[in-house]
Amino acid sequence: MVQYQELDKSLAALADPTRRAVLQRLGGGSATISDLAEPFGISFTGMKKHVRVFLDTEIVTTEKLGRVRQCSLGPRRLDDVQAWMDDYRRMLDARLDRFGQLLERTKEESK
Amino acid sequence: MVQYQELDKSLAALADPTRRAVLQRLGGGSATISDLAEPFGISFTGMKKHVRVFLDTEIVTTEKLGRVRQCSLGPRRLDDVQAWMDDYRRMLDARLDRFGQLLERTKEESK
Repeated sequence: MVQYQELDKSLAALADPTRRAVLQRLGGGSATISDLAEPFGISFTGMKKHVRVFLDTEIVTTEKLGRVRQCSLGPRRLDDVQAWMDDYRRMLDARLDRFGQLLERTKEESK
Repeated sequence: MVQYQELDKSLAALADPTRRAVLQRLGGGSATISDLAEPFGISFTGMKKHVRVFLDTEIVTTEKLGRVRQCSLGPRRLDDVQAWMDDYRRMLDARLDRFGQLLERTKEESK
């Protein structure tokens, strides 16, 4: 169940356009909360809340450097999300194959 | 922005273990709300709410057959979620490459 809860948190963290844009920004290098907040025109407190959602999932990590906290992408590559997506798409492919076989059989029988 | 809102909805819809399990179940074939509710031990109304979240995103479709409503997987393959994941992982790879190059250069300079 622990793994499931992690996946829930990862997916919920990604379900927000600002948070997804923050990840793209951090891909270019680490940034302070103020750096992150500015281009979105949201408050420091608002951005801090978004970052906290990522800290829970370890998608983002922070480090205190002097008086400011620097945010960076964490070690997680969202492998749990990708693994779920892979399973889902494999299931869809298997379903499509079954439909195909059924169609073939129906064609054969109606000959 | 429309595309972003769809992606938000898809990710939020997936951020629940019961809803993900419902998709796996529907992969095996269509089912009524009651069929879906039973193995989870949740109420008809509770499952109806979960299914409604999927209807919004067209991940699941329903069809009225006689007196019951049959749920099936919709035409969407979550391509928007996969596309975002692909972009994200490409960005992580590019970041790793930059770190590698930086490390190489540092090694060269310290020779």
